[in-house]
Amino acid sequence: MSRQSERAPSEVRGRVVLVGAGPGDPELITVKGLGWLRRAEVVVHDRLVAPSLLDEAPAAALRIDAGKSRGRHCLPQSAISPLLIHHAAAGRLVVRLKGGDPFVFGRGGEEVLACRAAGIPVEVVPGISSAVAAPAAAGIPVTHRGLASSFTVVTGHEDPSKSGTDVDWEGLAGGKGTLVVLMGLGSLATIAARLIAAGRPPSTPAGVISRATAAAQVVVTGTLADIAERARHLPPPATIVIGEVVRLAGNDPVRAEAAFRWTDYAGAE
Amino acid sequence: MSRQSERAPSEVRGRVVLVGAGPGDPELITVKGLGWLRRAEVVVHDRLVAPSLLDEAPAAALRIDAGKSRGRHCLPQSAISPLLIHHAAAGRLVVRLKGGDPFVFGRGGEEVLACRAAGIPVEVVPGISSAVAAPAAAGIPVTHRGLASSFTVVTGHEDPSKSGTDVDWEGLAGGKGTLVVLMGLGSLATIAARLIAAGRPPSTPAGVISRATAAAQVVVTGTLADIAERARHLPPPATIVIGEVVRLAGNDPVRAEAAFRWTDYAGAE
Repeated sequence: MSRQSERAPSEVRGRVVLVGAGPGDPELITVKGLGWLRRAEVVVHDRLVAPSLLDEAPAAALRIDAGKSRGRHCLPQSAISPLLIHHAAAGRLVVRLKGGDPFVFGRGGEEVLACRAAGIPVEVVPGISSAVAAPAAAGIPVTHRGLASSFTVVTGHEDPSKSGTDVDWEGLAGGKGTLVVLMGLGSLATIAARLIAAGRPPSTPAGVISRATAAAQVVVTGTLADIAERARHLPPPATIVIGEVVRLAGNDPVRAEAAFRWTDYAGAE
Repeated sequence: MSRQSERAPSEVRGRVVLVGAGPGDPELITVKGLGWLRRAEVVVHDRLVAPSLLDEAPAAALRIDAGKSRGRHCLPQSAISPLLIHHAAAGRLVVRLKGGDPFVFGRGGEEVLACRAAGIPVEVVPGISSAVAAPAAAGIPVTHRGLASSFTVVTGHEDPSKSGTDVDWEGLAGGKGTLVVLMGLGSLATIAARLIAAGRPPSTPAGVISRATAAAQVVVTGTLADIAERARHLPPPATIVIGEVVRLAGNDPVRAEAAFRWTDYAGAE
């Protein structure tokens, strides 16, 4: 876990490293991911990545915002893989910094396959996914003995190229496990209605965690029947969690950015 | 992200911090988790935590192995929470270091509730779960556009106190998403047979990742029909992944501990 020393760009073999930046709090990146970021010559990052994390890249590194927000695409997905390949083929160490985990709805698989097809060495460093960390930051374990022995993660943000939906909402309604919906804030009313129509009781506990693990985190809880109304003013990004485990959300929240943080802890000396 | 300075034990307010150690590779702990570990006065750790990670705790820290392996319990679960509370109540900073993520089948929820009930401040720092990182280390994204738009995580290691099974294998068999089974190596033949009996095609791709992200990682792929036979000699811990995404497992594996690691990278200078 020693720090890496500096290295001249000419000595670097070109490659692409997909790094998961985690759910929001910049200290929730992995030690390995931070190590790569500190050596990057090119950083291609999502919109949701914390600015202070980008500051960890060398000052001379080229920073490219490939961030996407709904209705506002900085770079189309079809342009991202060619961009990664272009810089890596020129011999540069390219870090593709993605919010959460690169392989959880991050389209990292597509970027990996594109690099492989182009003969570019590619590596993936996993990140903390909001699917587990956002509920955790609200004190909600996605599994808990006696309450939930499985959890399912889906996206509420459907691929616009699909004619129908690929998510089996009816099947999910019948399950006993925890259901976590990423990118579903805009369609929460529809999702809740579908689950209720398919048989999930309207009284099922439900929660929304907005801006999880960041200082601006807000948690709202309710039931499938009223969660869309209760959460209607929350800003994205948000994680939705549905199931009995939501009952464990604490008044004394188990938060990564709780009132007592380790940075404060160090500062109190 | 500055390093924390040293702090005398007498200045520390007692508390418990549950820290996810990640899937195996010690560099897959978070920066925040490592920060807490480096300040710990007491470390209560799982068996699966890498020894080099334990070396990051101060030399004077008390280390307690609460590790469990099947049929060999170092400490019963019922003794762990009282132990955490005992040391925190005495004013010590207690780090509970758990493999993977504390809230993914880690029984972290039970430890949090016990601390809360005892009035002990408790915080959770998430970790990289093998549920996503182990498939990733074999080049398998748990979600991939056109192949899987959801994933479900279950445990194959049933709670012995349950009379039946709490996992809805029949419901899981009908789903279209990726299925990830943790702690299921010993019951893989039974799990595969159940899924096939419930209608999942025997030709469904399946993979097992043993000792994911560690130097001893081994990946075996096959189908639901033959995966138990193919994986019968693999050592635990292992992650099982079932679904079309297994087809993406690379001959050029996307591994956290690939031939080219960032430590090697630094060492090549």
